[in-house]
Amino acid sequence: MSGEFDRVARLRAIFAGAHRGVILGIGDDAAILAGDVLATGAVLSTDAAIEDVHFRRAWIGQGVTWRDVAYRAAAAALSDLAAMGAEPRAMLTSWAFPRDVGDDVVDEIARGFRDAADVYGAPVIGGNLARAREIGLTTTVIGAAPARAPRRDGAQAGDVLWATGALGEAALGLAALEAGIAREPDAAAFVSRFVRPPSRIDAGRAAAQSAHAMIDVSDGLLQDLGHLCDASGVGARLDALAPTREADALARRLGVDARALLESGGDDYELLITAAPGVDLSRIAHPIGEITREPGIVGATTARTGFDHFG
Amino acid sequence: MSGEFDRVARLRAIFAGAHRGVILGIGDDAAILAGDVLATGAVLSTDAAIEDVHFRRAWIGQGVTWRDVAYRAAAAALSDLAAMGAEPRAMLTSWAFPRDVGDDVVDEIARGFRDAADVYGAPVIGGNLARAREIGLTTTVIGAAPARAPRRDGAQAGDVLWATGALGEAALGLAALEAGIAREPDAAAFVSRFVRPPSRIDAGRAAAQSAHAMIDVSDGLLQDLGHLCDASGVGARLDALAPTREADALARRLGVDARALLESGGDDYELLITAAPGVDLSRIAHPIGEITREPGIVGATTARTGFDHFG
Repeated sequence: MSGEFDRVARLRAIFAGAHRGVILGIGDDAAILAGDVLATGAVLSTDAAIEDVHFRRAWIGQGVTWRDVAYRAAAAALSDLAAMGAEPRAMLTSWAFPRDVGDDVVDEIARGFRDAADVYGAPVIGGNLARAREIGLTTTVIGAAPARAPRRDGAQAGDVLWATGALGEAALGLAALEAGIAREPDAAAFVSRFVRPPSRIDAGRAAAQSAHAMIDVSDGLLQDLGHLCDASGVGARLDALAPTREADALARRLGVDARALLESGGDDYELLITAAPGVDLSRIAHPIGEITREPGIVGATTARTGFDHFG
Repeated sequence: MSGEFDRVARLRAIFAGAHRGVILGIGDDAAILAGDVLATGAVLSTDAAIEDVHFRRAWIGQGVTWRDVAYRAAAAALSDLAAMGAEPRAMLTSWAFPRDVGDDVVDEIARGFRDAADVYGAPVIGGNLARAREIGLTTTVIGAAPARAPRRDGAQAGDVLWATGALGEAALGLAALEAGIAREPDAAAFVSRFVRPPSRIDAGRAAAQSAHAMIDVSDGLLQDLGHLCDASGVGARLDALAPTREADALARRLGVDARALLESGGDDYELLITAAPGVDLSRIAHPIGEITREPGIVGATTARTGFDHFG
């Protein structure tokens, strides 16, 4: 890989471009955002994507590129802004690379972040490069708060529970990738769903006005709904949730349970929203159940599981 | 180590406490800062401390604690705010741990960040935990911009070059630590200088009003001064710089060149400030040379070197 300072110059070129509200970007000790973009309050979150935990080098060339890996790392971090109803403003990303990672890979990773920056409207304004034994991409996202940010602790008994997009399909894409069939026609869309998660920023902003509670689904529906219920002191009843015919067919082929993935698969980056019964969120989401006074989640066919880094 | 959710609860307790301007801290999808704290503009930077690159487990018990390692990781990141003349407001920190790292170590690391949060006035408002093969602590710092943030590209020929504190002494502390004599009386102060870098926030804020350019010294005087000169299109002449008698004595004992460490040793986290000749910064710094029209740094006794992660 190039020396550190050549490398920074290359990255500055990839991340170049004027962005509203960025007074000073990459290249000085710190970046500066204009005051007015954060006048409504800053929303901040940080997330890491680490080799062999969040992605594998063996995926590259199997239907996934380094650019996808980077896009997904950024999108995962940005999803937390969606869950607060915030508008993304900027990203800083710190990268750790082993010595055997070449300039071409680093450029591809930069381009993946640039893709996400463009889709989400969040320019990369700072970063850091360090050596390590494994690849690590740690991203901090900064957004502007909505007038009223929906937290995870506001759900009320009687609320309708809404979800954006199709839950469990990212986990199915991951299973296809791990099975080595990522490029086959019936798998490619699911793999794409895994490596290029949808942006739910617009849905989050729209829901912020009326949501009682909101959370993004990164560790599986049952686990993240569980966090929301625990924080709010409520429970939930799920409607009968069914995978699509395509998802069910791929799951059978892979020998996995599509319904279990729907309930506990990770990496969806969809939003769970609770709102009073009269509120219509059908433009951005679909109803999947109801918030109940009794603690616990009923209506699931599988046990509440999900990813625990330290379990 | 505890499960992820128990762990987060433990960390929330360590990082608890009301802080001015923090509307929502650890525990939701993202943290929220009040709009008004950033009304002058947000200053942001990110930095990583990685095992065997920035610190070693073998140091622990040799005069250094995990709490020190964490403090240093936070202080290194916060130093970039000092170099912009910014006032720290908050930190987010993402941690990667191998399986063999116990709860006691994680708590100590949390306490070190808490120490730095208290010294710098920058509460930890968010974070992330992930598995990895080595320990990695990645910290993003957020500050409020001064009315005029001194960048590295503003130095002018004829400016006086000022430095805060004693350069090279952190590198001497590191050398003592690596030589296994960290706890000996003539070494302890230097090791402490390395693991608990000074806060130069106040100096940075004071200098911001009159500085033409400013940078923090993390990779060695010659290297960071070189960045400042390159960005400004100028050169510099250094006065004869001399280590203290104590530094010189320890350096001789360790078989290293105190003068070389002064010029090229890393980890100082002091500030270099350039200002017009009439400006008196003697309350916060001491003059070490002058900015020249001719490119290049003259007056150094050693070659321009410093740490390059990818060299």
